[in-house]
Amino acid sequence: SPAWKQTRNHAAAARLDLRGIYPPIATPFTPQEDVDFQKLEENLQKYAKIPFRGLVVQGSNGEYPFLTEEERVEVVKAVRRSLPADKLLMAGSGCESTKATIQLTQKMAAAGADAVLVVTPCFYKGKMNSPALVQHFTKVADNSPVPVVLYSVPANTGLELPLDAVMGLSEHPNILGLKDSGGDITQIGLIVHKTKTQDFQVLAGSAGFLMAAYSVGAVGGVCALANVLGREVCELEHLCVSGRLEEARALQQRLIEPNAAVTRKLGVPALKQAMEWFGFHGGACRSPLQPLTEAETQQLRRDFCSNGWL
Amino acid sequence: SPAWKQTRNHAAAARLDLRGIYPPIATPFTPQEDVDFQKLEENLQKYAKIPFRGLVVQGSNGEYPFLTEEERVEVVKAVRRSLPADKLLMAGSGCESTKATIQLTQKMAAAGADAVLVVTPCFYKGKMNSPALVQHFTKVADNSPVPVVLYSVPANTGLELPLDAVMGLSEHPNILGLKDSGGDITQIGLIVHKTKTQDFQVLAGSAGFLMAAYSVGAVGGVCALANVLGREVCELEHLCVSGRLEEARALQQRLIEPNAAVTRKLGVPALKQAMEWFGFHGGACRSPLQPLTEAETQQLRRDFCSNGWL
Amino acid sequence: SPAWKQTRNHAAAARLDLRGIYPPIATPFTPQEDVDFQKLEENLQKYAKIPFRGLVVQGSNGEYPFLTEEERVEVVKAVRRSLPADKLLMAGSGCESTKATIQLTQKMAAAGADAVLVVTPCFYKGKMNSPALVQHFTKVADNSPVPVVLYSVPANTGLELPLDAVMGLSEHPNILGLKDSGGDITQIGLIVHKTKTQDFQVLAGSAGFLMAAYSVGAVGGVCALANVLGREVCELEHLCVSGRLEEARALQQRLIEPNAAVTRKLGVPALKQAMEWFGFHGGACRSPLQPLTEAETQQLRRDFCSNGWL
Amino acid sequence: SPAWKQTRNHAAAARLDLRGIYPPIATPFTPQEDVDFQKLEENLQKYAKIPFRGLVVQGSNGEYPFLTEEERVEVVKAVRRSLPADKLLMAGSGCESTKATIQLTQKMAAAGADAVLVVTPCFYKGKMNSPALVQHFTKVADNSPVPVVLYSVPANTGLELPLDAVMGLSEHPNILGLKDSGGDITQIGLIVHKTKTQDFQVLAGSAGFLMAAYSVGAVGGVCALANVLGREVCELEHLCVSGRLEEARALQQRLIEPNAAVTRKLGVPALKQAMEWFGFHGGACRSPLQPLTEAETQQLRRDFCSNGWL
Repeated sequence: SPAWKQTRNHAAAARLDLRGIYPPIATPFTPQEDVDFQKLEENLQKYAKIPFRGLVVQGSNGEYPFLTEEERVEVVKAVRRSLPADKLLMAGSGCESTKATIQLTQKMAAAGADAVLVVTPCFYKGKMNSPALVQHFTKVADNSPVPVVLYSVPANTGLELPLDAVMGLSEHPNILGLKDSGGDITQIGLIVHKTKTQDFQVLAGSAGFLMAAYSVGAVGGVCALANVLGREVCELEHLCVSGRLEEARALQQRLIEPNAAVTRKLGVPALKQAMEWFGFHGGACRSPLQPLTEAETQQLRRDFCSNGWL
Repeated sequence: SPAWKQTRNHAAAARLDLRGIYPPIATPFTPQEDVDFQKLEENLQKYAKIPFRGLVVQGSNGEYPFLTEEERVEVVKAVRRSLPADKLLMAGSGCESTKATIQLTQKMAAAGADAVLVVTPCFYKGKMNSPALVQHFTKVADNSPVPVVLYSVPANTGLELPLDAVMGLSEHPNILGLKDSGGDITQIGLIVHKTKTQDFQVLAGSAGFLMAAYSVGAVGGVCALANVLGREVCELEHLCVSGRLEEARALQQRLIEPNAAVTRKLGVPALKQAMEWFGFHGGACRSPLQPLTEAETQQLRRDFCSNGWL
Repeated sequence: SPAWKQTRNHAAAARLDLRGIYPPIATPFTPQEDVDFQKLEENLQKYAKIPFRGLVVQGSNGEYPFLTEEERVEVVKAVRRSLPADKLLMAGSGCESTKATIQLTQKMAAAGADAVLVVTPCFYKGKMNSPALVQHFTKVADNSPVPVVLYSVPANTGLELPLDAVMGLSEHPNILGLKDSGGDITQIGLIVHKTKTQDFQVLAGSAGFLMAAYSVGAVGGVCALANVLGREVCELEHLCVSGRLEEARALQQRLIEPNAAVTRKLGVPALKQAMEWFGFHGGACRSPLQPLTEAETQQLRRDFCSNGWL
Repeated sequence: SPAWKQTRNHAAAARLDLRGIYPPIATPFTPQEDVDFQKLEENLQKYAKIPFRGLVVQGSNGEYPFLTEEERVEVVKAVRRSLPADKLLMAGSGCESTKATIQLTQKMAAAGADAVLVVTPCFYKGKMNSPALVQHFTKVADNSPVPVVLYSVPANTGLELPLDAVMGLSEHPNILGLKDSGGDITQIGLIVHKTKTQDFQVLAGSAGFLMAAYSVGAVGGVCALANVLGREVCELEHLCVSGRLEEARALQQRLIEPNAAVTRKLGVPALKQAMEWFGFHGGACRSPLQPLTEAETQQLRRDFCSNGWL
């Protein structure tokens, strides 16, 4: 019954501690652009040795908009099979319509997700004001068997989840927190401040502002760069949390350029290329994402080299 | 064989004259948010009496991002059954990945579309530069059984199809033209100018700048407002084409505010509300699009009333 | 007395017919970056043979933000001495504060301006809402001995003069019209529509959308490109006004790229370089505007050549 | 001689330690909109009791775009007379042209400024690329008798000082640092990182991200809110510098909303209103800045009250 579900969810939400670092894993493809489950598995085995809190499957770096619904669920199942039980599996289940998001959320839960990451719908961005977003996320959270993490990624969606919507949604028993990839550190601090009675957990959506986010109250990070330099991002977390600020600052600064290179500047193709350099399977993206040009590859290499990573 | 297909496409492209007005039809839903085929059919019968060149099925106003692939194809089939043979059926078949776009394009052709309207992929907007877009649309056009019309709608996608990409794509034998909803009239004039050796047909994507678009060389319009004031938009086309500029200007000016109200200002819920006022079935949108507030409804009414339409 | 002034202004406003083309003239400098009045005079003599309605002195292309108040007034005096009496002299008198704008407006009138062009203040753009802008322009118009033309140029100011502010200001007896450099043709059409009971005159702020602006009711243009291709811009005006639309369209299309090159794309340094090619004195800009690079100069040349102007 | 000047400057730059908090002081006006030197003096006496590192005179909050050159210099002289010798006086001397900026810089130095704060020129923002900005600031620094601090304030200028320009300029012996009001914390961290061999000092341009800026290596802040809650902003500095992070975070969070209210949300009129509530002279702004509406005043009060400051 719904009443039971609500209770269970609430308890689940109360239990789930999101603190830590998550790579939003990339999706390897075969040369025919099919999902390469073998390579995915090999990446997961390497990630298992890094002290991540868990994995995000089908964040923006997972090319989820290019996957069919079936592929999305299959990838989550594959990750679940491989992932140690003590690691969290957070699965992206956002779609444009509320109905489709609920359906995929339920499938993700059935496939083994511990929580779902739900991106703001964005095609009708002019109409995605706070009431619309609150209703969308509320319906999804009401109907989700697992806790929900909100996901705001303006670089892709052209839309920032407004503060008042976050405040309202933070009161929902099945909404755990927010992954904020916008990086407006003032906004992040304010969200932590205005939701502090709700035990609402904010995750930095990028390694570029991870230390700053910790300084204003974030509890972890979902960082594309953790696909490449996972130990180093976890080390940054450790330094921040244990108050070793000088060392944290030095490490943080060396991560900004490589992080920018694999996200804002050169995107998923660069993330996958850098993964190759560091012993993971990256490979090609699905079209229309193009391989890096030679000049872009050199730029990417410089951004790692000049900071001492290559 | 591909060679044969190319030839056939080329011939098809040569034949297809896009000139005229198209409503990008709304998708009526039942109270349970299912597609209401009965109401759709009744709308189509009313549209049949208006001198449209054809219909666009699953432009942005059709809420296509909220429809499943199956629904998208079923709606096209339903329209095809109802539409007189001399009217064009242009079906939106754009998806984020090239592969999915090709598959849906082929299904749309099989369902009876005369042409497909392919929106720019946009989630990875930072990577959607001209080479990526050219490759995407080229692959789609290479594999489409029916001619392709490019679709640029920055208000939804956050992305404008660049001029050099349009110029390159205009040379493809299976790419017929462009629906431009951005409304940068200088850009529209330049596109017409730089593609004139290709018989490339530009359609204004909104009634708000229809007359201006005709003035710089557009050949028609895909206009949300034509769902509501179809005869009037066709009359504006007629006045523009026959050089009755004073009358055209007076009519154009009276259409700007109602057009803005049902598009940029208040969106699809307003379009559907206005359809109800003018004898069509509009009804509710799928969530997360919300019904108009009372204040919005009054604003919508004012924008029609103050221009003499209500 | 103010009462008398108001009456005189009103009458002046009633008399002043803005229809036609205006180059917003460039300011030539000596190698020492002083105003070169000799070269200015020689340009003016060449412009006198072109059927302009008048000149704009100290629009954005005049580098007015780089001139001292004294220089601004001296340049206007110099132009007045040279300009035939039947040509209008419209002088830019906008400053950030209302007080400074009023003072400069009065000096411009005393220096011989027939009308003043007053740009939107923009440094505090977050506070420049309609009430603030209406009060600013109202105070300026109340205190101006000559009619006022509003000036909206978002590419420089980051601010568009809102429709409701324009509508309110159009009722002021000493406000004649608007120079719109934003180029949103839907907005231009709506401004014409909503101010038509006021005999409010709208001027296109660029040759790039001049024909489209005529189509929706503009009465002329202030066009940077008219500094270079003055006869051609006047010819386009003539073709538009006399309804020779095919010829107008062909000419309009050939003007878009050279116009973009000397405005949005390459700016005032390109305008001044192109002036040199066409027999006018352009020369260098004041710092921090830099000379064109070699690559930019070649791009500029291509944009004129490929359209048959060089 | 220039050689001597360069040496002296270099030495001066080496000496000047910017660490600490600066209010960018507001300019009080009489009811007739003249500068009210009496009220200014009274504010300064109150500020003298707060452990500021110094004052910024004619930052954006000083309404400098509304002051004449003479007023700008007179205000600096007045502040100099009142300011204790151990406090820094940083004077805004930025103008649109390089020439005018140099002249005003020299006047500011003569009037007693210890350093000048030079904003990015912005009217021709499309042309203000790195080479143009580097040349502008280099010429200013070459000719300034006192050290120069760069000033990037995109909310007003529509322009962010690019990283590569900052890196180049950081090598100039007479350029001390940067006031960054953009608040992109990733960019701030990267600037600190890429200029660390230059002893380049970065100041946060707002109290909203002060703690985060300290976390990534900033050395102080120029904070509008320090005009109102000066002791509290200095306390935040103290907590950050001494590593009392829990207390710092709690205080930082309580300052975000009042800070946003007096800057981005409600602007200089709100800053001046809040100053009145806290015992300083604020008063009216020069037109076109308008007084707060009643609703805005209530919003402002709420933003202070809900955080326990009123």
